[in-house]
Amino acid sequence: MTENRRTNDPQGVRRRIIDAAYDAFVSQGYIATGMLELRARASVSGGAMAHHFPSKRELGLAVIRDRVAEAVRQTWINPLHACADAPTAIDLIFGNIIDELTLKGSVSGCPLNNMAMEVSQHDPEMRDVLSEVFYAWHDALSEKFQADVASKRASDLNPSSLATLAIAAYSGAMAIAKACQDVGPLVDCRSELAATLATKYHSVT
Amino acid sequence: MTENRRTNDPQGVRRRIIDAAYDAFVSQGYIATGMLELRARASVSGGAMAHHFPSKRELGLAVIRDRVAEAVRQTWINPLHACADAPTAIDLIFGNIIDELTLKGSVSGCPLNNMAMEVSQHDPEMRDVLSEVFYAWHDALSEKFQADVASKRASDLNPSSLATLAIAAYSGAMAIAKACQDVGPLVDCRSELAATLATKYHSVT
Repeated sequence: MTENRRTNDPQGVRRRIIDAAYDAFVSQGYIATGMLELRARASVSGGAMAHHFPSKRELGLAVIRDRVAEAVRQTWINPLHACADAPTAIDLIFGNIIDELTLKGSVSGCPLNNMAMEVSQHDPEMRDVLSEVFYAWHDALSEKFQADVASKRASDLNPSSLATLAIAAYSGAMAIAKACQDVGPLVDCRSELAATLATKYHSVT
Repeated sequence: MTENRRTNDPQGVRRRIIDAAYDAFVSQGYIATGMLELRARASVSGGAMAHHFPSKRELGLAVIRDRVAEAVRQTWINPLHACADAPTAIDLIFGNIIDELTLKGSVSGCPLNNMAMEVSQHDPEMRDVLSEVFYAWHDALSEKFQADVASKRASDLNPSSLATLAIAAYSGAMAIAKACQDVGPLVDCRSELAATLATKYHSVT
């Protein structure tokens, strides 16, 4: 911790602010979080905050670009690349999040959807940056479905719209799970997506 | 309008406040909306506002109970009761919302999900009231699937988890549509849900 607090470590300070902002935006929301609170959470001076992020909006954009995009990469895109096929990856991803939320005992929701629901209508630039994260997510899943068709694992599927269904089901299930503080919607969507994919795959590994 | 502004019409005043609050919460969000702004939007005095809704929280609860629940009833529950079977109703519901958003040219999102994403983590009572709306929605769709199985329209389906998938896909597609200001995700989910249901229904009317 000490080296992070050195005033001659601007990248450390910047990272500390973004860490604190990401945690606060995910747990209590972007609009509900004030810059003064973030200064306290990150233990930075007003001058340091103003130097790195003159406005909450700029901090919001940095959190989306650096952290929300990274959360989607770790949660979804990396497992898609690592697994043999899309159904295996989707089942693993839902299983991971169900385990994580069950262990944690509460649902704070999907960082991307939380931010998107709050800011997308107010701010076109934030909306564009959030949209890019959704598109990267959709492209990764769509490409996986396409590869599965190319390798004859699956047939008779529309990679793009099926990717939308899986992402929408995950996002919606997270939203309902958050509203009801219950992982049940994720469990239901996991099994229904697996059943839907099974009708399109010749043999799910 | 004139009769609504009579000071001896407390129900009219209450309704006007709730109307203004519902519009503001849906279009700009619950947290971002202030009580002073709502007084101006509803053209009511501070005294009248304090009489009906001493706090924004009480107004939020009234908006969920009176308006958000009603929006879910009109958009989802009534068509479910009116249509011959669940697939016909779901296709109609997605078609209606796609047409409405296309005509409007912008996506403000699902009133229930918007409110849920903002407030469910902060306030257990609001969360309970929001959960009830989700449960009523889920029960109506689940019962329709059950009725379709009973009348031999469908077989081999789990009414409860299939209802969760359809509701999550709708909620998630609305969230992505809002973030990207594009109805595409709803169009994709409509066609994928129809294809999924077709595998479970003997003949979709």
